[in-house]
Amino acid sequence: MTTARENGAGQQSPQSPSRRRGRRPAGEDTRAALLEAARAVFAENGYHHATVRTIAQRAGVDPAMVKHWFGGKEGLFTQAVLQVPFDFRDVVADVTADGPERLGENIVRRFVTTWDGAGGDRFVALVRSITTYTEALDALRDTLVNQLFTPIAQVTGSDRPDLRASLCATQVIGLGMSRYVAGIEPLASADVETLVATIAPTLQRYLTDDLGIATD
Amino acid sequence: MTTARENGAGQQSPQSPSRRRGRRPAGEDTRAALLEAARAVFAENGYHHATVRTIAQRAGVDPAMVKHWFGGKEGLFTQAVLQVPFDFRDVVADVTADGPERLGENIVRRFVTTWDGAGGDRFVALVRSITTYTEALDALRDTLVNQLFTPIAQVTGSDRPDLRASLCATQVIGLGMSRYVAGIEPLASADVETLVATIAPTLQRYLTDDLGIATD
Repeated sequence: MTTARENGAGQQSPQSPSRRRGRRPAGEDTRAALLEAARAVFAENGYHHATVRTIAQRAGVDPAMVKHWFGGKEGLFTQAVLQVPFDFRDVVADVTADGPERLGENIVRRFVTTWDGAGGDRFVALVRSITTYTEALDALRDTLVNQLFTPIAQVTGSDRPDLRASLCATQVIGLGMSRYVAGIEPLASADVETLVATIAPTLQRYLTDDLGIATD
Repeated sequence: MTTARENGAGQQSPQSPSRRRGRRPAGEDTRAALLEAARAVFAENGYHHATVRTIAQRAGVDPAMVKHWFGGKEGLFTQAVLQVPFDFRDVVADVTADGPERLGENIVRRFVTTWDGAGGDRFVALVRSITTYTEALDALRDTLVNQLFTPIAQVTGSDRPDLRASLCATQVIGLGMSRYVAGIEPLASADVETLVATIAPTLQRYLTDDLGIATD
């Protein structure tokens, strides 16, 4: 199953000029190629059905390199899907930099550009691996809530930061599911500005507005 | 996705007050027990890893009954997970009955009480099966968008009904993922009124408010 977006972003054909043929030498280059191939294969097949052989073949490297660089499939998944190439503290600092009234806009813009830039592969790989690999679910929960939205909600000084953080998670997970996994149109191919205009007010409200419930 | 009403299974027999032990006789009782067991096992394992044997064992019936009643695993999944025991036209009529300004509240209340009442099993089974069973994804998209939110958005007479419908889908899918699949607290155990107060305004805005983008 592929979405329109996956077909567009993920169709890195073997003829692609940036893609080398044959085996790669060991080194950082090999490691990067394996990470890229892993994200694509995990996105297509989920954790359980993705094999080290398929990933190595896609990357054009010897399967032994997976053991060498990552210790095996689990380590490769951790590095390729669960770990992100940035520090969440930096993201929190970035999205809060313009003050509380720009939070919604900054969050949606950051999420969509990051996920779009990665072809959505990382998000799809995460969701497709939830079936058989509970660490994927833990990672989704930990990163979105504990490392991202709870610190952001705490910065605003609003009441009920934990509830606000989990509300933000619902909207952002739903956006990722709809745009990258389910390919629900016209949202899946909407441009960033449309998503900012429509979805940012939701996150803004969840973070800084009166939630309409009694505070305890 | 068809509804129970359309295929003549509208009158779902109520759960027998005490679960029987051992093999059940063939009949509507067996069929209901298989459907219930199937939702639980598909929710735990996803489509691919759920076996007919496990489901039959859970239901306390002979595995041959799965073939007899459903034709096999795929038919069982279709009946247990993809088909819902109500007609979406009734849901659209219900949530729009109080006028456009109550849409958000009625939708959140209806979703949460329905999913909570089913133990969230149906939603979890759907998500856990997305990995290997593309019909699960098609069903999610078709029911939420085509059968539910697009008709609702059309009733309101708002501009861009398709975009509004897909925005509603992001919030409702994210709510289901967060509450039933990922168990993100405190949202996962929040009561219905808290969810209505916090999330209904989002759906209300997606359906009836100015989206802040140029109309075409």
